[in-house]
Order: sequence, then C-alpha cells, then structure tokens
Amino acid sequence: MQKRFARMTRIDDSINAIDGLECWGIKEGKDGLGIVKCEGKISGVFTTNRIKAAPVIVTAEHVKGGSFKGLVVNSGNANAFTGEKGFENAKRMAEILASKLSCKPEEIAVCSTGVIGRQLKMGWIESKMEEVFARLENSREAAKNFVKAITTTDRFLKEYAVKVGDIIIAGVAKGAGMIAPSMKSATTATMLAFLFTDADLEKTEMDGFLLNAVERSFNVATVDGDTSTNDTVLLISTGKKKVERDDKELFRDALTHVCFQLAKMIVKDGEGATKVFEVHVKNARSDEEAFKAAKTIANSLLVKTAIFGCDANWGRIIAALGYSGIEITENITLWFEKDVESEKNGKKGNEKVYLLEKGVQTGFEDEASDFLRKTDDFRIIVELDVGDGKGYAIGCDLTYDYVKLNAEYTT
Amino acid sequence: MQKRFARMTRIDDSINAIDGLECWGIKEGKDGLGIVKCEGKISGVFTTNRIKAAPVIVTAEHVKGGSFKGLVVNSGNANAFTGEKGFENAKRMAEILASKLSCKPEEIAVCSTGVIGRQLKMGWIESKMEEVFARLENSREAAKNFVKAITTTDRFLKEYAVKVGDIIIAGVAKGAGMIAPSMKSATTATMLAFLFTDADLEKTEMDGFLLNAVERSFNVATVDGDTSTNDTVLLISTGKKKVERDDKELFRDALTHVCFQLAKMIVKDGEGATKVFEVHVKNARSDEEAFKAAKTIANSLLVKTAIFGCDANWGRIIAALGYSGIEITENITLWFEKDVESEKNGKKGNEKVYLLEKGVQTGFEDEASDFLRKTDDFRIIVELDVGDGKGYAIGCDLTYDYVKLNAEYTT
Repeated sequence: MQKRFARMTRIDDSINAIDGLECWGIKEGKDGLGIVKCEGKISGVFTTNRIKAAPVIVTAEHVKGGSFKGLVVNSGNANAFTGEKGFENAKRMAEILASKLSCKPEEIAVCSTGVIGRQLKMGWIESKMEEVFARLENSREAAKNFVKAITTTDRFLKEYAVKVGDIIIAGVAKGAGMIAPSMKSATTATMLAFLFTDADLEKTEMDGFLLNAVERSFNVATVDGDTSTNDTVLLISTGKKKVERDDKELFRDALTHVCFQLAKMIVKDGEGATKVFEVHVKNARSDEEAFKAAKTIANSLLVKTAIFGCDANWGRIIAALGYSGIEITENITLWFEKDVESEKNGKKGNEKVYLLEKGVQTGFEDEASDFLRKTDDFRIIVELDVGDGKGYAIGCDLTYDYVKLNAEYTT
Repeated sequence: MQKRFARMTRIDDSINAIDGLECWGIKEGKDGLGIVKCEGKISGVFTTNRIKAAPVIVTAEHVKGGSFKGLVVNSGNANAFTGEKGFENAKRMAEILASKLSCKPEEIAVCSTGVIGRQLKMGWIESKMEEVFARLENSREAAKNFVKAITTTDRFLKEYAVKVGDIIIAGVAKGAGMIAPSMKSATTATMLAFLFTDADLEKTEMDGFLLNAVERSFNVATVDGDTSTNDTVLLISTGKKKVERDDKELFRDALTHVCFQLAKMIVKDGEGATKVFEVHVKNARSDEEAFKAAKTIANSLLVKTAIFGCDANWGRIIAALGYSGIEITENITLWFEKDVESEKNGKKGNEKVYLLEKGVQTGFEDEASDFLRKTDDFRIIVELDVGDGKGYAIGCDLTYDYVKLNAEYTT
C-alpha cells in the first residue's frame, strides 16, 4: 500500500482546500448549524437502521439526482422519530438553502445529529441559517467553524486531507460513538462524514468509490456496535481536475485512506476509550470472512475489557474468532504489532509480540501485557491458513468511563 | 401460557428427584469434579463456536448413539485449544467412567469449563473421579455437591425442577457470562446445563424438544454476546414414566420453561449485573424476526448502560430495534412491565409504564425511570404492527463491575 501512495501526501488544510467551496458554522451550547456551498456532483451512503431520521430520507432522495449545490447540517437534534412534521422540517431546511442559492431543493443535502424524538426548533434554525449564510467563505477558519458546528459530544475535531498528484480529497467528520450526556430524552451516537474532492468523476464511479471506501473504513469502525438512525457519508466532487484513467484506482484507495483515518479518529474519540486498535485477519477463506472475523473480534466485550486492563488474553480473541462463524483451523498465528521509529536513524519499523505461532502458545503473555501498557494505538494480527482473504476492523477498549458516560449523565 | 401450565408445579428437589439417578461432586479451590450416574437416552445441543473444546467434540459424537450411562464434568480447565493431547484426555475421562460403570465409553458424556489453552491435570482428575465415584448417591445433598463442583465464577447455584402431572423435569446449570477473575491465561464464560427427566420419549422427540427449548431459553439469554468454546446442554431421560400423546406438547413447553428459568438465573448471575430484564417483541412479521429484534435490543450496550443508569431511554431501544434489520413501521407501542402482587388480596398482576403508544411519545420518561430504580427484574415490551410474530430475549445491565471484573483481575 505504502508504495502506491508515494504520490499521496497529507496536507494541513481542510475542506477549504477545495477551490470554489465556501462554508461556515455556528455552535451555541448544544445546538449548532453549519452550511457548505459548493457546486458539483454528489454521492451518499446512509445508515442501514430501519428507523431512518427525516433528513436521511430526504437527502438519500436528493442524492439520487446527483447534482449538488449546498449542504446544511444541524447538531443538537437528530430530527429522528419525529413523524410527518419532522419530514416537513427537513424538507424546509433544504428549501431555505435552495432559495438562497437559487437552486432546486433536490440539489441540497440536509443532515441532523443529536437527540431523537424531538421536533426541531425551526425558528432558531432559520435565523442561524441566515446568519451562517451571510458569513460563507473559503478559509481555514471557516472550515474549522463548520466542523465545530456539527459536533455533539466529540472531544476533538476530525479533519483529514490529502493531495494525490494535483487532486485533493478533504474530509471532515463528527461522531464519538456516544450519547449526548445530558438529558432524559433519547439520543444515539451519529456519525456524519463529508468528503470533498476536485476530481472529475462520473456519478456512477463516485457511487462505487464511496461505497467501497465506507465498507473499508466507517463500516469496520466499531465503538459499541450500535448503529445510529442518522449516519450519513457524502462525497462531493467539483470536477475541476481531470483524473487519468490509470489514476482512478489510486483515487479510490486515497479516498478509502481518508475515510479510514476519519473512522479511526471517531473510534479514538469513542466514549471513555483509552486505546484504539486495528484487528487484521489474514489468510481467511475470503475477504468477506476476514472482515467478518475482524469485526467480531473488535466488537467482543471480553476483548475490549481485556485491552482496557492491558491483559494479553489471546483466548478471548480466539473465542471471538471462533464464534464469528468463519472457516478456521487451530493452526493460528496471532501477534500484537505497533509502528515504531528508530531513535537513532529515524527508520520506521514494527514492534511485534507473538502470542500464538501456528497454533502453539509462545508463552509471551507477560511481554504482550507490557506491550499493551505502553501503547494506545496498535494492531492485533490474526493469521489463518485457509485461504488468502484479508480484512480488518477498528475498535477501542471498553472502560469505566464508557459505562459512566452512558449510564450516569441522565438526570 | 399460565393456563396450560396449570398442571405444572415447581418442586424443591433437584436432579435427585429422578428415580435411579446418583451423583456427587467435589470442589477444591478453582478445580472441581462431578459425576452423574443414570441410565437412559441422551440428546445434546452444543456451542456453535468454530473453536470447540475437546470434550464438546467427544460428547457430541457420543450423544449421536443416544444411549446414556454417566456424565463426568470438571471445572477449572476448559480443555479447549489443547490439540491432540486435549482430545485424548477428554476421551480418557469417558473411558475411566465407562470402565467403572461397565459400559461403553460412547455412553458417557464429558464436559469441561474453565481456562482455555492448558492441558488437564489428569492425575488430579483420575484421583477425584475415584473419590467422587465412591460417594455416588441419590440425595438432595449429592445434587447440591454436583452443582457446586461444576461451577466456576457463579455467585449462586442454579437448579430448577418441575412436576408436570407425574413427570419430573429437573435441571441444573452453571455459568455467569463471565471470566475466571484470576490469571493471565485465557478463559471464557462457559454455560453448561443438564436436564434430567423420567419421561419416556423417543430419541428423535428428545432432540426436537431440546433444540426447541434451547432456542427459546439459553440462546436468547445474553450477558455479553460472547459465545464460549464449551457451551453444552444435555437432556437425559430415564424413560420410566409414560407420556400420553396429548401431553407431549405440555412436556415440550415445561422443558422450555425449566431451561428459560435456568437461563434467567445465568443472566442474573452475569458479571456485575444489577438488573435482569426480558425483551418481548410482538406483532413482528415472523417469530424469527421478533426473536432477532429482541436479542438485538437485549445486546445493545447503549440499552444495557441506560438500564444500569435507570434511564428510560426509549430512543436507544428504538434505535436497536431499527438496526436489528427487521421489518418495522414507526407505529410502535413500547412499555416497561413487571409482575406485582397485591398486598391486600395477594392477587397477581402487572405494573406497566408506557413510553410510546402507536408511535406517539407518552411523556412518562420520569415515571419509567422511577420504575427502573425500584426493580431488578422487569420486561420491556415492544409492540409492532406488521404481523403476528412474537419473540423474546433475556438480558442484564452493563455496569462498572462488568468492566472491573473483566479488565482488572488479570495480574
């Protein structure tokens, strides 16, 4: 992978790196509102939850047209389980922005995140849309304000941008796999991510690339296994830069890379998490089985608590691997791994601690527990012997603070 | 259900209520050994984990024959992930008991629970088998000792027996959805349950009844969603009592009832759990979908932490219902319910607090939170409008102690 990304560099800018994009956002207490103005094509991937928030239904419909002029996002209220009125409100948000941009409402995307089961305060929303729209600009500050406006319980802002040749892919996201720690009313953790690029792509290509990227990033990221009613990922492309036919695959991988980094930030910001880890499963019967097993391991409460306790409990990993239901034999190699940089010559490498080698215990549990104590970002590698399928997942540990944040802050 | 069980009464005895059954058990520190001697037919249901412990493989094979003479169970060591030697040891345990009972090894069932990845101390096992065998008897004390011997981290013994007409069904179980809180080495939570009856049934009937019961009890009980390498449920029937054709269905339901009660005890004994709850989903498209949704809700970490925090967070329940993937509309009625007995006249009834009525919020969140504070055993009822399928699951809350027990007790 590294080699193919030789032409890819991370840049410090955010979505403001996209020529022609303007944005702004305002956060007032728990409520926020952000707008992005930008002309191009749009693709979207939405929550699979059967209970879909009103803005998800509206935006999923709008995205089908493929033409994009603007995005409006509010935080603090998910506009979910709000019936016909919620639906009208979501459409109204699109109409307001469309009239300001002199475009069709179908060219507007609407997203919401926050409390479930409450109607939006439309008076507040309309007045903030007015305010935010008046300040739209292309600047680093504007991008930061937009991201800040769409956060709920995030402890840090999530931005990641790369340049691949002369093409830019810039993404922002919100989400912390958690719950607004404030009130009696119902809330869920929502993940929103917006990717912008100047690459010139067909709508069908964009759809394919985005789906591929989401399946290898946000869909393998798991904080608590709960799926929100509002999860939305959008890819918007201004089409100003040509993409050579040979570079399409590179674009696809770079987009996946950006999504993966954003997904990892979301997991890192998971409720009370102290450690983020990747699970890589190799030599499975198929990629599909490898992804399934990796996700099952990353989701196991017993694995998550063991990692919190810095306990190199490989039996829990093996048990989770077993109940994932994929084809395995006992001929399993299992190790922990992290990136290290030599202090002497700055060379990059891996530090590894093996727990199982071809099904035989190494007896290095103490070393592995020590490894866990000294890292907050590592990989669990599980090597099988039933094929050449590979897959991965991102997880975080389960801590007292997870329970505390989700149980206690309710009154 | 109540009406059909008019002829069923709970009895105080345990497996000693089965005529001809003898048992005993010894617990020494973390290690234990128990034996049951009893002649009859056997059916079994085993873990679906792809990593199966040696005794599971051995016993699953033996059960196929259908003839049963004895059961030997050890606790403290799961004999899982132990390769060829582990397999030989499991077979050896069956052979020893078979030679004592002058029967074929195939007529013996073997179960293990405890640490994964360590070889059995066969010297200790053989000497304890000798000791326990010498003390086999039919008594309440013997049954208690047997159950005690097979426990690992259980905080209380799990026994439940009923009489249906003149037929007895007596079950014992171990399991607490938890992990031996002691060592660096790998352990998982194992659930073992042994049902004995004197009903005269065909082997194929027994197989069907047991599978049906397990699917409606142990398989809907969830503490942490992790499935062990050793889970085993056995049904043994001495065949001494005739079952009328018309009473077969009653037997099936009584067996399910006994399994359900044992499953609920296991959940109640879940790691650090303070509350046990049932989730009932009604009017789903099919029973299968109802069971799936109930289990998803009972498994949701956000639901489990909310219940620990006595937070009537119906939005989390609805969100879990949504991502379970079953067919739903927003026309949902949702309430909490518990059994109550009138202090005045001893009449039994239900106390209910509604949160949603046909999709509309009732505003009774405060009352519902108060309800949660005053109960440690209740039901969440979710009524849909897409069919007449019904299903249920058993769950418990997620607490600080769960994290503590699974993360901290490792060094």
